[in-house]
Amino acid sequence: MSDFLIDEELLAAIDMGSNSFHLAIARVDHGEVKKVASMSEKVQLAAGLDENKNLTEAAQQRGLACLARFVGRLGSVQPNRLRIVATNALRQAKNGHEFIQKAAEILPKPIEIIAGREEARLIYLGVSHTLANSGRRLVIDIGGGSTELIIGEEFEPIHTESLQMGCVAYSKAFFPNGEISQKDFDKAVVAARKELSGIANTYREAGWDTVVGSSGTIKACRQMTINMGWSDDKENLTREGLDKLKEKLLKFKHVSEVDFDGLKDDRRWVLPAGLAILYAIFEVFEIDKLVYSDGALREGVMYDLLGRFQHEDVRDRSVQALMGRYGADLKQARRVDDVAQQLFSNVAEQFNFNTEDSDLLRRAAYLHEIGLAISHGGYHRHGAYLLQHSDIPGFSQIDQIHLSHLVGHHRRKLRTDDKVDVIRAGSRKLMNLCLILRLAICLNHSRSDAMLPAIELNALDAQQWQLSVSGDAKQWPLLVADLHDEQIQFKHWDIDLNIQSEQFIS
Amino acid sequence: MSDFLIDEELLAAIDMGSNSFHLAIARVDHGEVKKVASMSEKVQLAAGLDENKNLTEAAQQRGLACLARFVGRLGSVQPNRLRIVATNALRQAKNGHEFIQKAAEILPKPIEIIAGREEARLIYLGVSHTLANSGRRLVIDIGGGSTELIIGEEFEPIHTESLQMGCVAYSKAFFPNGEISQKDFDKAVVAARKELSGIANTYREAGWDTVVGSSGTIKACRQMTINMGWSDDKENLTREGLDKLKEKLLKFKHVSEVDFDGLKDDRRWVLPAGLAILYAIFEVFEIDKLVYSDGALREGVMYDLLGRFQHEDVRDRSVQALMGRYGADLKQARRVDDVAQQLFSNVAEQFNFNTEDSDLLRRAAYLHEIGLAISHGGYHRHGAYLLQHSDIPGFSQIDQIHLSHLVGHHRRKLRTDDKVDVIRAGSRKLMNLCLILRLAICLNHSRSDAMLPAIELNALDAQQWQLSVSGDAKQWPLLVADLHDEQIQFKHWDIDLNIQSEQFIS
Repeated sequence: MSDFLIDEELLAAIDMGSNSFHLAIARVDHGEVKKVASMSEKVQLAAGLDENKNLTEAAQQRGLACLARFVGRLGSVQPNRLRIVATNALRQAKNGHEFIQKAAEILPKPIEIIAGREEARLIYLGVSHTLANSGRRLVIDIGGGSTELIIGEEFEPIHTESLQMGCVAYSKAFFPNGEISQKDFDKAVVAARKELSGIANTYREAGWDTVVGSSGTIKACRQMTINMGWSDDKENLTREGLDKLKEKLLKFKHVSEVDFDGLKDDRRWVLPAGLAILYAIFEVFEIDKLVYSDGALREGVMYDLLGRFQHEDVRDRSVQALMGRYGADLKQARRVDDVAQQLFSNVAEQFNFNTEDSDLLRRAAYLHEIGLAISHGGYHRHGAYLLQHSDIPGFSQIDQIHLSHLVGHHRRKLRTDDKVDVIRAGSRKLMNLCLILRLAICLNHSRSDAMLPAIELNALDAQQWQLSVSGDAKQWPLLVADLHDEQIQFKHWDIDLNIQSEQFIS
Repeated sequence: MSDFLIDEELLAAIDMGSNSFHLAIARVDHGEVKKVASMSEKVQLAAGLDENKNLTEAAQQRGLACLARFVGRLGSVQPNRLRIVATNALRQAKNGHEFIQKAAEILPKPIEIIAGREEARLIYLGVSHTLANSGRRLVIDIGGGSTELIIGEEFEPIHTESLQMGCVAYSKAFFPNGEISQKDFDKAVVAARKELSGIANTYREAGWDTVVGSSGTIKACRQMTINMGWSDDKENLTREGLDKLKEKLLKFKHVSEVDFDGLKDDRRWVLPAGLAILYAIFEVFEIDKLVYSDGALREGVMYDLLGRFQHEDVRDRSVQALMGRYGADLKQARRVDDVAQQLFSNVAEQFNFNTEDSDLLRRAAYLHEIGLAISHGGYHRHGAYLLQHSDIPGFSQIDQIHLSHLVGHHRRKLRTDDKVDVIRAGSRKLMNLCLILRLAICLNHSRSDAMLPAIELNALDAQQWQLSVSGDAKQWPLLVADLHDEQIQFKHWDIDLNIQSEQFIS
């Protein structure tokens, strides 16, 4: 586990949204995240996706310039107290890896692309820590590329959904030239209702006591209706205010003409699309009143980070849930984890491993057999598929790809191509973790607590590993045959595995 | 459901094993399968796999000639009372489809390739119906390409495993020229022990009261030890007898010289490999005595067939288990099933659908959302992956591929390529079932019991479908938008979907 986070020490989150990028810096005060600085820029990354879903050069430059300015503000924030998350625009972008590589030259730590459900979970975490408890909540966050809808109680999300509709994407689709018409607005509303129809009944059945909204679209709509006096409620966004806003907006022919008190210049361009989505949500869920919350994704990211330091890592809960669903053998997982951690600590200094690496190895040890629930044949590949494609609370896409590589290469042949893939996905460290996991599994083939041999791993250098094994005679021929196989596989990845073995007669 | 099977009526199973092909014909007598005729040929399909895992022309010809002889013996057995299953050699063969196509010209119904676990389940079914109940059983079946090990009680398997070792495959690997040596025999035993090590502890912990063996290798070993008087037990295969058999066998230098009372000529060539596997199993599980059972895969296939007729279809139990594991929404599944069956019956005559088609559609309706447990994004593809790769009791590979296509194309775009794939996998019938399922799902987007419109489907011809819909005004704009989308998708598969709609004002 990481060192404990000291009160007063800073932490930070960068949220690379499809419409805006945000930086939030906070300090921890009695277990609460207190924002001390923040910064936002309307980068409109989603608007820079071309017809082939590639980020244009111009959009990439806007993004990089903004990140460079954010880095200048990070000051003394330690890299392990920072998280940088990217959402729908980078989820969609075919050339996202290109952008991430360029950004890596500027940023003190890698960008994590998070899945839609994970985004929804983090938004709920942010909102639930920002608002007083008020029974069951429906939380709505309209982003540039996706819209998250969450039902939860206290700090626990119950339903999390991320829908493919957002104010930037819908602007491009329904208001491409900035012209405003009743017909286009209605089309956008029908499209949004269609997206909502898949979850509407489930959400209605679950029910809620209050509706909470976050994000720029909702913030702007609330501010305008209050400033313009379109609603009696001076605190919240009401149905009445929203109807008035829609009516007034449709009187304009073009977004450049729109002029409301409370509307910022850069919000103007995405207002018709954002309003259409919000209007559809109000209709489908028959909402009368929505409370605005300033807490959102970046607050959630910081609370999640805080939880990790305070030993409440949601990722461990997710690992348990996966083991439960796929009926994994906990005893065997523990055996493999024990041996893997022992081998890991033998070489941790030499390979410059840190606690995140140890966490990753532990989670892979726990999950390496989940593919058995699908089929015995090729179960390592099934496990890798599940870990790559599942929505797993707390994990970023890169976390999942690392896990997927560890599980996908835990048995059977190691091909030279695989080595290239693994190093590309996570550097030589990931490759070394892969090999440590294989050894730990190999040493536990007997699936028994009793017969574990004494072991020690040494890395003479990056290419020369030495494993000392001494063990019981009964299982010896099998263990020797297994380790011999591993030697051959290690060779495919250019590692000499030297085995010093001693057999005990028990 | 299929028409009920009349007592006294014949049923048959063809088991295309890696070593031998078997035909069994039986009649049903008070719910029991009574064999009336059988036939076996040592085709040695596994021996005909070349280094690229392609079946050689010669092996294919041996197989086809044998199948032609079997067909001659089938006589009056109805095709729906026959099942033809193929195991490891065809699971492995890269050009298996080629062979299956050629065989289709001879056979009255298609060959089903079954997965290893399914083979294990069916073997247990055969053995458990053939032997008197005797507590918990360990059942061993050594085939040409794979070996099945099952623990079960009464008619229920508890653990089912299929390991990649068999008497033909091991003959090729360890005794390629027919030469016999202690060294090669030991190597084969170590290899077999290695295969067994992954399941040994789980099996030992589960425990058993009796050990039962089926298959030619075990039958021959038992017969020889009894005939040669190498054991006091005149009924069963004992450890003592097996040790003696091994000792005597290793005195020969070549399989052509081996001569024991009870050994048939064609068994001679795979005896050293079969014995090595059996010997490793006796060692690992510390077996003293094994009861031989004449019931095996083909008996299991017939009992399984009988169960299907008697409304105890194990496939429905499997569907329930999958829905449970992946937490599928049963209410929505039922709604989709109801509508799908209604549409199905509208066009059943025109499209020549039968009860198997209706069963397939029903199962797809129940399973179409299982991929949601992995992730919302692309969940139809995740569902298709699970259905293609999972070990699902009762389903053959072709069943699973059909299900996988139905689930994989139940939403999102239909590409022209997909149409070709679907028709190749299961003819135009499968394509039509796909489209019926899509319509049923589309009509249930609201996930509500209340709002279902009245519907009727008509196929004017293969390319011209007409759907009449009349429904409630409230959901109307969404339903119309959804059906319009479907029209576009149907067009990609060259079907004109004509929609006659009438809106009710409620």
